[in-house]
Amino acid sequence: MTKGRVYIISGPSGSGKDTVMKKLFERKPEIAFSISSITRPMRPGEVEGEKYNFISRERFEQMIQNDELLEHNVFVGNYYGTPKAPVFNCIESGRDMLIEVDVNGAAQIRHKLPSAISIFVMPPSLEVLKNRLNGRGTDGADVIEKRLNEALREIASAKDYDYIVINDNLDAAVDDFVTIMSVDRFKTDRNIELINNILNK
Amino acid sequence: MTKGRVYIISGPSGSGKDTVMKKLFERKPEIAFSISSITRPMRPGEVEGEKYNFISRERFEQMIQNDELLEHNVFVGNYYGTPKAPVFNCIESGRDMLIEVDVNGAAQIRHKLPSAISIFVMPPSLEVLKNRLNGRGTDGADVIEKRLNEALREIASAKDYDYIVINDNLDAAVDDFVTIMSVDRFKTDRNIELINNILNK
Repeated sequence: MTKGRVYIISGPSGSGKDTVMKKLFERKPEIAFSISSITRPMRPGEVEGEKYNFISRERFEQMIQNDELLEHNVFVGNYYGTPKAPVFNCIESGRDMLIEVDVNGAAQIRHKLPSAISIFVMPPSLEVLKNRLNGRGTDGADVIEKRLNEALREIASAKDYDYIVINDNLDAAVDDFVTIMSVDRFKTDRNIELINNILNK
Repeated sequence: MTKGRVYIISGPSGSGKDTVMKKLFERKPEIAFSISSITRPMRPGEVEGEKYNFISRERFEQMIQNDELLEHNVFVGNYYGTPKAPVFNCIESGRDMLIEVDVNGAAQIRHKLPSAISIFVMPPSLEVLKNRLNGRGTDGADVIEKRLNEALREIASAKDYDYIVINDNLDAAVDDFVTIMSVDRFKTDRNIELINNILNK
């Protein structure tokens, strides 16, 4: 059976990545979403197992030790990571999976799973990025400045991704994702079985 | 300005590659076609500069010496090659170009021009391949056997290509090429300008 494909998706604050992903799952509900394991406390409104599995720091460090993670990061003193097993089980079953990570996590996944396709969601311009980061209207200039610098730091790694989707218009950006995913069936690693069949291997 | 893309296309005898290419150029006349330089004598019906430039052996060997070729091969005592200059001029002008070569030539182009996208046209099965190779009805069993072995040798290199297009139905195969080409605008190397603009580089 042909394996599923892992899609890595990243994009800075202001890229609109979360909304694009939400719409994408409405369009392509057959794609699985990777649940991160994290050690920070649950926030109001969050549900265990929905976007995150909330686990103890001890369990997380054990997962690192046992090489059970496809990638992990520390952020504000808490661990964030993608467990390997659910990802590998998913793609072995033939189902595609989307993993949302930052540029650091994407680099780790690319290294451990070279067949993964990585897509970076970009704002259409610096001006739009600034407007979107200012848009909430409730934050001070220093907070916005910090968020902009962090966004620019992420964008500097965009060149390491396979594809760039410019999110100027939400529906168009979702269409772009669907188009990128539509060529996957032509990728050589999806056609090895046919090649081998013809060669009688 | 964004550069054009080079598409390498290969496929064995019996893959139907030539017909797919003909239909593809009808659908996408904006794509340029690379003219090969060859040293074999012109055959009846061939036109200088249409599919081939017919040049002398001396001139060809000079091109090899001067590193003027993107790839070259010897076939039945004659040289076949792709001159670099027209390819680079074409993509510098922003136009995409299609280069038809065998698996040997494709490997050389991939090495010298890593941004090239390579597509292999496959027959849908060994049975269909055999039928197509037998189809002309005028050749002896030994000639057909030789052609089949050559086709299988080419198919064994299909795994080195970026994409596989299965030519079961001609129109569908042409659609597949168009789909593959449609994602090119999302490739990261086509979006470097936007990345640099946002980073103020």
